[in-house]
Amino acid sequence: MAVGDSSFPSMPRIDGVRLGSAMAGIKKPGRRDLVVIEIAQGAKVAGTFTRNAFCAAPVHVAKAHLQETLSAGASVRYLVINTGNANAGTGEVGMRDARETCKALGDQGGVAPSAVLPFSTGVIGEPLPMERLTAGLPGALAALGDDASSWALAAEGILTTDTRSKGATRSVVLKGGRVTLNGIAKGSGMICPNMATMLGFVATDADIDQARLEALLRDGVERSFNSITVDSDTSTNDACMLIATGRGAAVGDDDDLALLREALDEVLVELAQAIIRDGEGATKFVTLAISGAASVEEAREVGFTVAHSPLVKTALYASDANWGRILAAVGRARVVDFDVDKVVIDLGEVRLVEGGGRAASYTEDAGSAVMARDDIRIAIDLGRGDAEATLWTSDLSHDYVSINADYRS
Amino acid sequence: MAVGDSSFPSMPRIDGVRLGSAMAGIKKPGRRDLVVIEIAQGAKVAGTFTRNAFCAAPVHVAKAHLQETLSAGASVRYLVINTGNANAGTGEVGMRDARETCKALGDQGGVAPSAVLPFSTGVIGEPLPMERLTAGLPGALAALGDDASSWALAAEGILTTDTRSKGATRSVVLKGGRVTLNGIAKGSGMICPNMATMLGFVATDADIDQARLEALLRDGVERSFNSITVDSDTSTNDACMLIATGRGAAVGDDDDLALLREALDEVLVELAQAIIRDGEGATKFVTLAISGAASVEEAREVGFTVAHSPLVKTALYASDANWGRILAAVGRARVVDFDVDKVVIDLGEVRLVEGGGRAASYTEDAGSAVMARDDIRIAIDLGRGDAEATLWTSDLSHDYVSINADYRS
Repeated sequence: MAVGDSSFPSMPRIDGVRLGSAMAGIKKPGRRDLVVIEIAQGAKVAGTFTRNAFCAAPVHVAKAHLQETLSAGASVRYLVINTGNANAGTGEVGMRDARETCKALGDQGGVAPSAVLPFSTGVIGEPLPMERLTAGLPGALAALGDDASSWALAAEGILTTDTRSKGATRSVVLKGGRVTLNGIAKGSGMICPNMATMLGFVATDADIDQARLEALLRDGVERSFNSITVDSDTSTNDACMLIATGRGAAVGDDDDLALLREALDEVLVELAQAIIRDGEGATKFVTLAISGAASVEEAREVGFTVAHSPLVKTALYASDANWGRILAAVGRARVVDFDVDKVVIDLGEVRLVEGGGRAASYTEDAGSAVMARDDIRIAIDLGRGDAEATLWTSDLSHDYVSINADYRS
Repeated sequence: MAVGDSSFPSMPRIDGVRLGSAMAGIKKPGRRDLVVIEIAQGAKVAGTFTRNAFCAAPVHVAKAHLQETLSAGASVRYLVINTGNANAGTGEVGMRDARETCKALGDQGGVAPSAVLPFSTGVIGEPLPMERLTAGLPGALAALGDDASSWALAAEGILTTDTRSKGATRSVVLKGGRVTLNGIAKGSGMICPNMATMLGFVATDADIDQARLEALLRDGVERSFNSITVDSDTSTNDACMLIATGRGAAVGDDDDLALLREALDEVLVELAQAIIRDGEGATKFVTLAISGAASVEEAREVGFTVAHSPLVKTALYASDANWGRILAAVGRARVVDFDVDKVVIDLGEVRLVEGGGRAASYTEDAGSAVMARDDIRIAIDLGRGDAEATLWTSDLSHDYVSINADYRS
């Protein structure tokens, strides 16, 4: 299942970025499962990675190669992404396989292995099928292109349990001219990015220095991918990469930076929301707007406690305005000295809770009308301060259980 | 669904405790939903209550009445428990209803309202049907008895979505003679006691002072009810009460106390495990034994992160030895400076993980054989210190979703 619009945008060209994909048969035949992204010399690349302590071999290698490349003043030249196998929990063999993948692609592309960053997603704990993977690389390289079709095939090639491709594009006019941003992402389950089983790749032709690029990505990811949850499970393989080829207009002053930031945030939020709309078994897209918190951390703690509650999620699935479950989840969040009499909870335009209990104006009919929608907003004001956070989540359905009880079989 | 043995023990008499129950039609007719526990003058009572900030009106009133009674040097004389309605999120009306329940029972029993402690469990946010509840009280009082049948009917009368009654009994010989402990509990969903939608009532004829009684309960609950989770949702109404009538042998020295503590802990753990075996939709009973932690809090954090993971829970439901999901959950626990290379994970007698990845000796066949059982032990050694914790949880099945998507309809 999935919620809302499933169309994929027509991506414009980004000068300095080409994408190629192939069917390498990594998990099963006839599936697009290998993607290569070629980046022109001189481009800047920033990355954020999972904070799962058991992070996957490709995450270790990608971080090390990115650091090595930046230290040498060189450019990352290739990203290589396989699906069907996460190369996580694979120990030393996994590290060797991730490095060998980079060497194989580097040799064929005429660049150093450290100029290649590897990404994997799929089942945890199986060794990478290196023969099939390396055998697929020439086909992916031969397919490199920069048109809308190349973007669309790459977006398809990074999917696992996703039911639809996810892409977003924006264009913005800086003082020096127009720049474009394209982004693709995957993710459907094991989604509670801190950095998710999500991968995101965003490219722009903007000309920007490394420090500002990294700051843009870090801030943007916090408000997008790090603000969504399907099932509270943070993946071992999450990564989001931002490529700036520098072939387009330069990012000059703070006004330019603000314009680019706004466009990037829109791309990241659109991709993050697309992951939730395609969350495993999702039948509802839910926005949790927490306000009146003493800190952003507190707002996120309350929001994630509600978003992770199996009882809230099954009530959403049932379209049951069981606001008592929302109240119970808010009440068990780790908030110090919590005066619940000040909490106000709205479901869409309907007030649910105030003064420590059900709002006097509430009626079951009004609550049920909101819950019947597939796009639902829950606003929770804690009455403690001025901090806010907005999170997005999906419901817990029979299909979620089916998908995850059947995934390996 | 439920896991394992469903028999209810034959409870011996506890001198000083009588139980009566009735069908008051609180939520629907023909269901035993009202229980009164009469406690003899001079008994000691200790209680632990939910830490949910939105705790229910009866929890507020029970805590206040207990405090008032203790301060006056008096005895709690009645516990009154209704199911079908939690009287939570009901604001001032709920507080008034809880107090009126105590007054009605107090009047009929000839005791002060503050000698009555109220307990409610069921749907959140509906007003208590006071007429039906108070009309049921005379029948419950008329039914008061202390034989095995009274205990069994009371255990039945506190259930909600539970599919079976839960009871445990122990007897232990102190220096002054034999004492007996009987316990009953309810709980199946919204179970992550900190204190759970669980209620537990344990009675003993032991003669013990208030301070030691409270310490026994506090410590015992931490290792039993506060060490289980079905769905991470801490209820608004959880409470566990320990009654010591003092009609039996006195608890003299520390040896006596240790004997009583051991018997009480066995009763509490057996009841807590019974809640997990009857967890909503449960098809597996899972023991999580965490060792090698730097602190008990850290051990519990790792254990609960695994126990709450929807991906681990659906893999358990599928009997799929998807150890990568266990590893990923351990890796995202909030542990500072976590060196995952030291983590060792065993599934039953099969080593799953060591040295940062899959154990060399592991085979899918061996893992699958353990996962096929309905009683599964997962042992996780963090390699960081000497602290330990044992938690119990259930799996996430289609029935869990059905039960909670249908509960109010």
